[in-house]
Order: sequence, then structure tokens, then C-alpha cells
Amino acid sequence: MTLRVLTGITTTGTPHLGNYAGAIRPAIEASRQPGAESFFFLADYHALIKCDDPARIQRSRLEIAATWLAAGLDTSRVTFYRQSDIPEIPELTWLLTCVTSKGLMNRAHAYKAATDANEAAGEETDAGVTMGLFSYPVLMAADILMFKAHKVPVGRDQVQHIEMARDVAQRFNHLFGAGRELFVLPEAAVEESVATLPGLDGRKMSKSYDNTIPLFEGGAKALKAAVARIVTDSKLPGEPKDPDSSHLVTLFDAFAPVAEREAFRAELRGGLGWGDAKQRFLAVLERDLAPMREQYEALIARPEKIEEVLQEGAAKARAVAAPFLAELREAVGLRRFNAIPVAVEKKAEAATVQLPVFKQYREADGRFFFKLNAADGRLLLQSEGFASGRDAGQWVGRLKNEGAAALESVPASFGEGVSREEVADALAALAQPAE
Amino acid sequence: MTLRVLTGITTTGTPHLGNYAGAIRPAIEASRQPGAESFFFLADYHALIKCDDPARIQRSRLEIAATWLAAGLDTSRVTFYRQSDIPEIPELTWLLTCVTSKGLMNRAHAYKAATDANEAAGEETDAGVTMGLFSYPVLMAADILMFKAHKVPVGRDQVQHIEMARDVAQRFNHLFGAGRELFVLPEAAVEESVATLPGLDGRKMSKSYDNTIPLFEGGAKALKAAVARIVTDSKLPGEPKDPDSSHLVTLFDAFAPVAEREAFRAELRGGLGWGDAKQRFLAVLERDLAPMREQYEALIARPEKIEEVLQEGAAKARAVAAPFLAELREAVGLRRFNAIPVAVEKKAEAATVQLPVFKQYREADGRFFFKLNAADGRLLLQSEGFASGRDAGQWVGRLKNEGAAALESVPASFGEGVSREEVADALAALAQPAE
Repeated sequence: MTLRVLTGITTTGTPHLGNYAGAIRPAIEASRQPGAESFFFLADYHALIKCDDPARIQRSRLEIAATWLAAGLDTSRVTFYRQSDIPEIPELTWLLTCVTSKGLMNRAHAYKAATDANEAAGEETDAGVTMGLFSYPVLMAADILMFKAHKVPVGRDQVQHIEMARDVAQRFNHLFGAGRELFVLPEAAVEESVATLPGLDGRKMSKSYDNTIPLFEGGAKALKAAVARIVTDSKLPGEPKDPDSSHLVTLFDAFAPVAEREAFRAELRGGLGWGDAKQRFLAVLERDLAPMREQYEALIARPEKIEEVLQEGAAKARAVAAPFLAELREAVGLRRFNAIPVAVEKKAEAATVQLPVFKQYREADGRFFFKLNAADGRLLLQSEGFASGRDAGQWVGRLKNEGAAALESVPASFGEGVSREEVADALAALAQPAE
Repeated sequence: MTLRVLTGITTTGTPHLGNYAGAIRPAIEASRQPGAESFFFLADYHALIKCDDPARIQRSRLEIAATWLAAGLDTSRVTFYRQSDIPEIPELTWLLTCVTSKGLMNRAHAYKAATDANEAAGEETDAGVTMGLFSYPVLMAADILMFKAHKVPVGRDQVQHIEMARDVAQRFNHLFGAGRELFVLPEAAVEESVATLPGLDGRKMSKSYDNTIPLFEGGAKALKAAVARIVTDSKLPGEPKDPDSSHLVTLFDAFAPVAEREAFRAELRGGLGWGDAKQRFLAVLERDLAPMREQYEALIARPEKIEEVLQEGAAKARAVAAPFLAELREAVGLRRFNAIPVAVEKKAEAATVQLPVFKQYREADGRFFFKLNAADGRLLLQSEGFASGRDAGQWVGRLKNEGAAALESVPASFGEGVSREEVADALAALAQPAE
């Protein structure tokens, strides 16, 4: 079965080499894995929280979209869209706002950091805090839940927000699901091994340290100038150098295959001068970046081309979001009036019809299982054992949400004399709206 | 010039006779005034804050829509829509969320009431408070600002929310207006003289006192039964009665013309029995309500007809909301990429073009004035004196927003030798987006 992975891209600032190696490149590589269904979006509603400079918002969105496309994001494989092109997202945000407890938001790290800073400075607790900052975990929950994402790759500081999204989703499912799991509960995928590139001075490459190497900004010239400024020790050409104590080598490693990395180390030990070493690094960089930069510049020069790609992405995303939002509106009671008599009838009928039922349980060996019984009690589907109850629950959720499609890969076997069709029909019966 | 009046209708519960006489009837009468452009909406996104019972939400929306239509709301004159049919509203809500200070929401009466109750009960401050309750003044601001409403008729308890909407609008105008007033600053129209009908027991008619007289619910039979339960004194038929101490008379007054009111009083003084008096009141009520009830029942039986009316209303409302939201998105930087080169050019051009300019000032006599000068300094328009600076400012705002249309009624005269056309052109120049 396919795993939906959703990645939000902040649209403030201009990407540097560290962003490329640490985030853009691995995300694009992951999107090429078979079985992954990737959603990438420019988080421009989020950008409004931090930035009230329209020109900067606009420019940054353009540069970042061009960067991802130039870096090889394959928009025929992934869904790549601008958050603000999906009106279903702010609408879902309101539906979620109504079920989110304020206490949950009070505990959000970003908000706490702002109020702690205010208190330390002797200011009023909420000085300068906007409702955007305070309630952005709700918007983030809408981003994730709208597309039933299973996995959200995030840094450790963002794990709390994914937990909040789960919390809100559970509450909504409980209040309005009528036994169904309307929302998929997302999981944070924390990338512990993310390569954080060193900057010019050897500290982590970051705009706040002013030690970045540009990615495409300023062209080949700016890249060359930055590489020349990488700090090294003062050993002269001919003197043997210690590759393991040089962050130039760490940078080199991030862009060269293993054989080249070893050759580079050997040359440094053999006395290669730092100037020549930087030339080698620049050549390795340019091998990757030059074709992308050309692509980038072509895209930036034709913004209407990027717009077209994003509009296609928005259409793909809305094809998922719009029918799902319609289902959610139905669930909370925002229904068209012509649907009433039908709904009332169906409800009455549903109350008398017996449905198949999932059961989850734990065996003496400590493992967790689930089974699906027909309305008459016959065993339709029996799972294998799982190490955790959550795993078992997730499979039940997927079977309920995805129906027969999830049977492809579910670790379970059919009951005796039960056909695949019968199980598929039972899942379809469960998947029908409760009214 | 037309005044835009916006009225939100809560969609929880079923309207009773007090709601009709105190809110529905006067609002419908006001919408018939010449010069008024009325927007009425079913506030169903708001209903989600208080109610997680989808069937109740759905039923209440239907009953309330049918009630307003049966009571004579003329949807060819007014714009009558369901809030949840206007996706521009939640989107605007997010834009406003980003500029609303959290401190402002901390001071909202409804939120304070909830936290005070929690504290009095020894609970955590935010126990049971949802983000919906906390942030609903932002949604309400979006409701109002989306349609550039000048006036919002509200009860005294809602005045604070209109002030919050003004506050948010001012901040948004300041940050993103580039000198223009994107949002009209709304004013609360507090209805001091609203007739609050007495209930069966003489206290204010209210669901919480369980003393209501139904409007359409239960039909003629339920109305008759309720009227029979109106509390009177124990004077017998033939004994003279004091009309001024009877709330039956107050109820009668609300539905009868002056001549009938006097005749009713005279009869009571002359000894009319309470049973007969109630019959008279019932007849007066039925004269108004029976044709409406027939209409109401026909509507409730054909919800698809109401749906059609609301869809037409939504189309009218969105014809206003969609282009305005596009303008607001442009202002904050959520622009289509193909617009960039054009926008940049226009901006450069605008910077070199001199524009006409409004000036506001105060004379020695304490009154406030404004004038409009041409780019070359000539006087185009000179206002009369206003008692308050706000009045002067509002006229400037209307002239900027509405252009020549506002000239119809502005208390101002043209400069010497200046034609109406020249002033209209100057206003049009000011109204053009800054880029």
C-alpha cells in the first residue's frame, strides 16, 4: 500500500546550500521511492504569520518554487502546490478550530518561547503575539489532515505540532466520525540523520550565523566567491593536512561519491594546497549545480511557467481536498438542504441494518491483533500479531478509510471459505457514510 | 448613497414569538427602507462553536431560513446567504488572524466570562474553552469586513466585537493598504428600543425562562395553547381591569395598530374577561402569523426550494466577496506569479505619477473638515463642518472606496470652476490599486 508523505516548505527567505543538502535533495530523493505518494506545498499562509512585506512573500515563493523544480522535483510523480491555492485548507482550519482546545495551544513551544521572552524582558505576556502565531498549529493540522497524510517528515522541534494534529484529529473523529475514522492520524518522521552542512566558519550553515554558501543566488560567481571564503587552517601547499579536522572536507563529502571523497582525502594528506582543494570542491559543486542553476534561471525568467505548474498541482490537490471536505461538512452538519429527507431515511435504515465489525484484542503472548467479523459473526479477516496496539489500530483505520485498496498489503489472511470479494464488500459497507 | 447593513443570524434553536417581534420583524422592515443595502446571513460556522450535534445544526438552519423567508424577507432586495457557502470567509479569517493581536482576544467578553466561570469553579482557566470560542471575534470580523458593511445592528453585548473588527481592519489597512482603506470601518448600530416581548409569566420572553410563545412550531394549535397559558390576575369577567399592569396588553400592543390597542384597553376597563381577551389577542396574532405559517410549512416541506434561494444568495454574496478577496490577496503578497513583471512595472510608474490628495483638518470653531486637492494643488472638493473627526474620516473613506457614487450625498461642494467629472476622475485615480 502507498504511504502518503506530506512536506511543507516555508516561503520566507532564499534557499542556501545547507537547505539544499539538508532538506531539498533528500526530500526529492525520498519522493522517488516506489510506494511513496508525496505532497509538497509552499506554506504561504504560514509565511503571513511572520512577514508583512508583500513583495518579500511574493519573491520568496517564486524563488523557492523555482529552486525545488530546478532541483529535480518531478511534478508528474508528486503533488506540488501552493497552500494558498487550496481554499479547502482555511475552511478545514475553521472546522478544526471549533474542536481544538485552547489549553492545547497554550502549550505550543513556539508560543511559549514568545511569552517566555516577553516575561524575561518585563513585557506583557502576550506582547507582540498575533493570533496567527498562537493558532498556527491548527492551520498546520489542516494542512496535514486535509490530505490524510500518514507521515510528515519534520525536525525534532516540530514533533509537538504533529502530536497536536493527531490530538485534534482524534477529537474530531470522536465527535463527528460516528464510528468511522474520518481523519488519518499522522505520524512525525523525525530525520535524525539529516546532514547539517557546516558553513564558511565551520559552525552549522545558517542565515543567522551569516556563514552561508548560496545555492543559486548570484550565480556561479557568488558560489565561487563563497567557496573562496571557506575557513581552513594556515598550512601551506606541500604540507600534509588532516582531512578529518577540515569542514571543507565535510562539505566536499556532501557532494562527491565515495571514491572521490577518498581521493580528495589522500591528496590533502599528500600536501594539496587549500586553494587547489577549494577549486576541486567548486568543480564537484558545479557538476551538480550548474545544470540546475541554468534551469533555475530559466524558470525565474518565466514565472508564468511556474504558475502553470503550480496550478496543475493545485488541481491535483483539490481533487483530493474538495470531496473530502464535502464529507467533513456533511459530518459536522453543514449540509445542503435538499439532502435532508434522504439523509433522514438513510439514517433510519442504517439503524436497522447490521454491519460488519472490526475487533481489536491482545493475546497472551503480548501481541496485538485485529479481526473483521461479518454481521452474522463469521470471521472475514484475521490479522497477524503486531508489537503495538497502535500498529493494529492503524491497519484497522486504513482498511476503513481505503477499503479494498488496503487489502493489497495488509498483514492478514481471509477467514475460511471467505473470498476477497466478500471482504471488499464488507469494507465498502463500513466505508459508507453513516447516513 | 447606500448604506450597507449586515445582520448575522445565529443558527441554533428555533425562533419564538419574542425573536420574531424583537429581531426578525424589525430587521425585515429596515431592509425595506430606501437607501439600505442589506446582507443577512445564517451564521452556521459560528454555530459549530457551540454545537457538536450535526442533526441539530442542520435542522436549526433549515427552520431559521424558512422563518425569515416566511416572515417576508425579500431576497430580490437583500442578499440572503449561508455563511458556510462563502469559502472566501474562512480564507479572509486566516488573513485577519495573522494581524490580530492575541491580547485583543484575551479581553473579549465571551472568553472572559468562560474563564471567570472556570476560576470561580476552581477549574483550570481555559478548561473547556475551544479555539473556536477564543477566536470567534476574528471570524466575525471577516463576516463584516468581507462585505464592507457600514452598519452592523447588534445588541449591547456585541458592541465590543464590532470594535474589535474595526481594530483589526485598521491594522490591516495600515500594514497592507499602501495608503488606501482596503476595509471599511464598520459601526455598531445598537438598538436600544428593541421591543423585548414579555413571556407567559411576564418576564422577558426567553428560552432560558421556559416562558416562550412559539412562532410557527407546533402550528395554530400550539400557539393557541400557549396564549391560554399567559398569566393574568384573577379578576372575573365583568370586573374592570387595569390594562397597564397586564403583560397580555403589552403582547397585544406588539401586533395591533394603535386604534385596536385603544379599543382593547377600553374593553378591559369595561370588564372584558381574560378568556375573551386572550381570544382577541389570538385573533390579532393569527391575522399576522397564519399566512406566514402556511408559507413556513410549505417551505419546510420543500427544503430544496430554500436551498435554491440560498444558492442564489450565495452567488450574489460571492460576486462581492470573490473580487474583494482577490484584491486582499494581492495586497498581502499572495499573487499569481504571472502578474509579477506587470506589477513591478506598474509600481514603478505609480511612484512617479502625482495623485490627488485628501486632507482632513479641524477649524478654530472645533468642527472637522476634509478637502480633496488635485495633484497640482487646486481645490476639488470642500466638505461642510462635522461634529466629529470620525464622521469626516468616514466620508473620506467612502469617497475613496465608492468613488463618484458617493458624490450623490456627500455634504461637500466642488471647488471654483471644478466640474463633477473632474472630481469623479480624481476619485477614480485614487481608487486604482497602488500597483
